[in-house]
This record gives sequence, C-alpha cells and structure tokens, in this order.
Amino acid sequence: METQTTPAKAAEHMIQLVLNTWTGRNAAVSTFFNKAENDRLYSDEVAPGRNRAIYLLGHLAATNDALFPLLGFGDKLFPELESFSSKPDRSFEIGQSIAELKQQWETINSTLTSHFNALSTEEWLDRHTAVSQEDFEKEPHRNRLNVLLGRTNHQSYHLGQLNFLTFN
Amino acid sequence: METQTTPAKAAEHMIQLVLNTWTGRNAAVSTFFNKAENDRLYSDEVAPGRNRAIYLLGHLAATNDALFPLLGFGDKLFPELESFSSKPDRSFEIGQSIAELKQQWETINSTLTSHFNALSTEEWLDRHTAVSQEDFEKEPHRNRLNVLLGRTNHQSYHLGQLNFLTFN
Repeated sequence: METQTTPAKAAEHMIQLVLNTWTGRNAAVSTFFNKAENDRLYSDEVAPGRNRAIYLLGHLAATNDALFPLLGFGDKLFPELESFSSKPDRSFEIGQSIAELKQQWETINSTLTSHFNALSTEEWLDRHTAVSQEDFEKEPHRNRLNVLLGRTNHQSYHLGQLNFLTFN
Repeated sequence: METQTTPAKAAEHMIQLVLNTWTGRNAAVSTFFNKAENDRLYSDEVAPGRNRAIYLLGHLAATNDALFPLLGFGDKLFPELESFSSKPDRSFEIGQSIAELKQQWETINSTLTSHFNALSTEEWLDRHTAVSQEDFEKEPHRNRLNVLLGRTNHQSYHLGQLNFLTFN
C-alpha cells in the first residue's frame, strides 16, 4: 500500500469492511421486501415446500435481534420474534404484519449499528457471551467479529433463496 | 480482552477470521457435492426454472478461479470455466463431468489458500487489480480483503439455493 498506515488503523479498517458487508446484506434484504408485493409475501413459498418470504423476514430479524444478548448489548428488542428461530414455518401463527416485521427489522439493525460503532478493536475481538473465559482462551476466534461474519453469511444464504421469488 | 494483544496481532487475527469463513464456505460446498447423487446434479434444477447444481458448482469454481488475476496472483487455472460466469445455465454445453469440476474446485481453492497464506496485512489491504491507484486513494475499501468478504457471501448465497436439493 503506498499510503501510510499503522497496524491499529489497519485493524479499524478491517472492522469497517466487515461492518459494511453486514450493512450491505441488511440493505439487500430491505430492498427485497420494499419492492415485493405484500400478498405474495404472505402466501408464496420461495420454492415448493420451502419457507414463505414472511417467515424468512421474521427469521432474519430474529437472528439479528439475538445479537443483543449474544454480543453483550442487553436484552432482545422483540423477544416475540423468537418463534421464527425456534419453530419451522407454518407451525405457529405469525402475529405480525409484513409492515410490522419490516419496522422491527429496521429498528433492530439501526440499534445494533449504534452498538457496533461504539466498540473498540479489542472489544470486537473479545469473547461473545456464549463462550466462557476458559474456553475462549483455547478458542480465541469465538469473538464478536466472528459472530458478525457468520451472521452476514447467514443473511446471504437466505437472500439467495428469497431471490427465487420474482416480482414485476 | 484479558489476554494481551497488539494492533498488529489483532489485524492478523481478523484476516484469519475472514479466511476461515471463506474456507468454511468452500468446505460446505464440497460437502454438498460429495454427498449428492451425481445423476441428479446433472438433471435437477435447485428450484423450478432455476440453475442446475452442476451449473452452480461450475459457477462457484469460476468465481474463485477469477480471484487469481483479480488479486494479482497470476492467470486463471482453468479459463474454460469462464462460461459458468458469463452465460446462463443451459445456454452452453458443459464439457466437464461433475468429477472433473470437483477436482478443479479443490485445486483452485488449495492454490488460492497458498497465495492467501503468503500475504501480509498490508497486502491484504492493498488494492485489487480492477481498481486504479487513483481511484483506490478515494475508495480504500477496494482491497483484497474486501473482495474475499464479498466472494464468501456469494458462496453462501448459492449454498442457500443448493440446499433446496435434498438427497437421502
């Protein structure tokens, strides 16, 4: 690199790249649901016998909401989303409208972003709450940044499925 | 973090996390194709009207092969894979068997891994070959690490689709 950088700045830049990738996947999910026809989001499976789009929106929102306790930011904002993680589609009644789920999704992501922006490099590489200090010393990759890398890929995984639903 | 770390070590650790995420997605693709029934990989679309699994394997191999020139490691290993990136499924004759594609996929990934392991932190954050030095100074995120983050998510995207094909 011709420009001067320090290891500390390099580390901060990398965190920003990971954050931007997560933000980009969030935006892609939002774009999908903003252009989609509401009726079909309730009724259509993304492929025969697979999840409906409304379920996947709830599932992605629930996954991001679970980052609050996992990363030590506090309680979930919408614990009622839990069913979207613990139960398969059509096994429970979805109590939220698409509009409500979209609103919760946006609130979760913007609140998480505030927490992320306040973390130092050391805090990003510190353990998440599902690993003990003892295990973390043996497995130092079980940190906040790694969780975000995994969750970002989880979003991409379901985006590939959502995009099988096409809208004109 | 209770353990002592330096910014330089933090940066190296982050690169390792990103690399491990990429390697993990490669392994998930390999696992899928190793357990799959060959006949159905040639014939079955992952969802009605969508790509066949053999096409997606070629597409993911072609995408990783394109990293050689993009990241400054030299020429593509298998330029004949290009059709899987530039053309849709069923618009060209696939000349490779599943076994050949799996072999190429493994060779591409192991060779890339050797190159990745030889890069310094500065080289990871240096520009890729598709951006000029002038543009890079304005957009410093257009570096090797960011490319790998994007490609890893691209793999996850198609893995979500591949997993719609189920095998007993």
